[in-house]
Amino acid sequence: MHQERIARVAQQLAQTDHDIIFVAPGADLRYLTGYDALPLERLTCLAVRTTGEAWMIVPTLEKPSALAHKVPDMGIELLDWQETQNPYSLLMSAVGQPQRPLVNNLMWVEKAFGIQGASGTNVELAGKLLSDIREVKTPDEVTYLHEAGAAIDQVHMNMHKWLRPGRTEREVGKDIAEAILAAGHVTVDFVIVASGPNGASPHHEVSDRIIQAGEPVVVDIGGTMASGYCSDCTRMYVCGEPPAEYLEHYAVLMAAQEAARLHARPGVSCESVDAAARNVLESAGLGEQFIHRTGHGIGMETHEEPYIVIGNKSLLVPGHAFSIEPGFYFAGKYGARIEDIVTCTEVGIKSANNTTRELVVL
Amino acid sequence: MHQERIARVAQQLAQTDHDIIFVAPGADLRYLTGYDALPLERLTCLAVRTTGEAWMIVPTLEKPSALAHKVPDMGIELLDWQETQNPYSLLMSAVGQPQRPLVNNLMWVEKAFGIQGASGTNVELAGKLLSDIREVKTPDEVTYLHEAGAAIDQVHMNMHKWLRPGRTEREVGKDIAEAILAAGHVTVDFVIVASGPNGASPHHEVSDRIIQAGEPVVVDIGGTMASGYCSDCTRMYVCGEPPAEYLEHYAVLMAAQEAARLHARPGVSCESVDAAARNVLESAGLGEQFIHRTGHGIGMETHEEPYIVIGNKSLLVPGHAFSIEPGFYFAGKYGARIEDIVTCTEVGIKSANNTTRELVVL
Repeated sequence: MHQERIARVAQQLAQTDHDIIFVAPGADLRYLTGYDALPLERLTCLAVRTTGEAWMIVPTLEKPSALAHKVPDMGIELLDWQETQNPYSLLMSAVGQPQRPLVNNLMWVEKAFGIQGASGTNVELAGKLLSDIREVKTPDEVTYLHEAGAAIDQVHMNMHKWLRPGRTEREVGKDIAEAILAAGHVTVDFVIVASGPNGASPHHEVSDRIIQAGEPVVVDIGGTMASGYCSDCTRMYVCGEPPAEYLEHYAVLMAAQEAARLHARPGVSCESVDAAARNVLESAGLGEQFIHRTGHGIGMETHEEPYIVIGNKSLLVPGHAFSIEPGFYFAGKYGARIEDIVTCTEVGIKSANNTTRELVVL
Repeated sequence: MHQERIARVAQQLAQTDHDIIFVAPGADLRYLTGYDALPLERLTCLAVRTTGEAWMIVPTLEKPSALAHKVPDMGIELLDWQETQNPYSLLMSAVGQPQRPLVNNLMWVEKAFGIQGASGTNVELAGKLLSDIREVKTPDEVTYLHEAGAAIDQVHMNMHKWLRPGRTEREVGKDIAEAILAAGHVTVDFVIVASGPNGASPHHEVSDRIIQAGEPVVVDIGGTMASGYCSDCTRMYVCGEPPAEYLEHYAVLMAAQEAARLHARPGVSCESVDAAARNVLESAGLGEQFIHRTGHGIGMETHEEPYIVIGNKSLLVPGHAFSIEPGFYFAGKYGARIEDIVTCTEVGIKSANNTTRELVVL
């Protein structure tokens, strides 16, 4: 599987006027090789030529780990460097002089400049070369995303155990973090518990604020499974009776989120999915309170292509996986967001998150 | 405090021929502003001029979060950009045309090239400009590191609850991850449980391998506290009776680790601390099995300056914080490492980790 992915990168590369691509640790490298090398100060880097030839350089102390991940079995030539060697020079000696090298977008600039320095050639961004491949998920990847969705659903279904008035967001968040691991994730990627006015900040995390009765609470949580695939799901809670006005807004938000889910299918543009949700909120006078795009792609990263945003005219195809998460935010008062991860099928979408989208009254 | 740190960056910058520095989310930004902005595809970036003027651009949806982190109160002009705007152009309009801009080393290359494109000027690496400031810890930062050390010590002290023959590394690792959070960390950064031959890979994480009686197990674990400072501590365990030969090697390793701790003090070079440990292992014929440097700095990142490695002639000063972690690795058999985080005092070092360094027999 990984060998095929690398071959595909080489094929795509051959259709450009670039001769080699360098890929640093991160989701791109995990996708291409299955090797979850840590992004460290020491250089680890994959290089793929248009011919399909591939090399990976790792620090000597990571060599056992690279071997355990069967790097050489994928047809990748494994190089290692000692603490006192220059890894960039070693890498260039192995791959030969690059003419127009690409680097993956999320490489640290110090590594990109290291490659630039050792090769004596300017590097350019891989741009969509890798994301065009990664954004269309195989059936196995779709399964992994639905497994991740089921795991985070488990956590939402148990929210009544932790979310209570009188507890702080941080206390609740700590319990949730433990539950994310207990549900089968290997890492906790983020825990947002945003009560009352904190809910007006879409990416508020947790604070020492004490949750009050009658306050809406945004709970947006996610982690990464052993498969390497991520979960991300937002549900809304309230302990006791919410303000009447909030319930009216919430009904609009549910309709907006449903409109986007009903609209999404192969052949429609990403921006039209955004519009489907946005139109409902705008019609109800909540357009200015919806201050972000409707969604983001997801896979081995929580945020990746395709982005469900105004201006993205790319068409959905089966295998695309993304969030549908409209929201509204009133500064100083409260906020709301409903988020599902969905995968595009041959005829529509399938949701990886399946707990109720209603406001959950605890 | 953050205002002083930014002023210090401006002063250091004024001593170079660079006129502005751009800093992306990550430890550099957290250190300078206290704002733990997520490293996302959307641009968030701090800019500091030699005059001390500072700007931060954030996506509009992150503005409440930036305000909650009191970014404007630090004298930083806060800009925000909508989903459909070009944040790089907006940022350049605010800061004025850069002449010789620096970027922090760990900025993603796509962001660095975005700045390069919008400014029409090549960016260069900040290099040691930021790390020279960050590597010397204040008394408060030293306290935070010792608190982190005490928290991870708690986890090691309870290892007997989880580490048993017949369990897999992954099962034990999951319990440890929960304990890292329960001990007061807000994130689990890494969990290495490397049994028997897996211990020969310094950065092996966990696997489905079942731990056997009599096998040495490397447990190297760390997390980040609410203060933002990291823990990192390795201890060695064995369930039952280890091989006699292993005990001999282990005694050498303890002596090597102690030699480095006794040697480290203000005024000695980083590489001499490495040599202090290495000489003991080499004298006992274990030099070739010690395949990595003796240590790394630690603070808001697990790995940062100063590195305790051959070739680093920098002298230790009070406030330096780093690991002392020699090891030995026999492919196919076993490995060992003993790691403490220490902080450099006026006269020597103080260890943040204080559980026994002996091989713990469970």
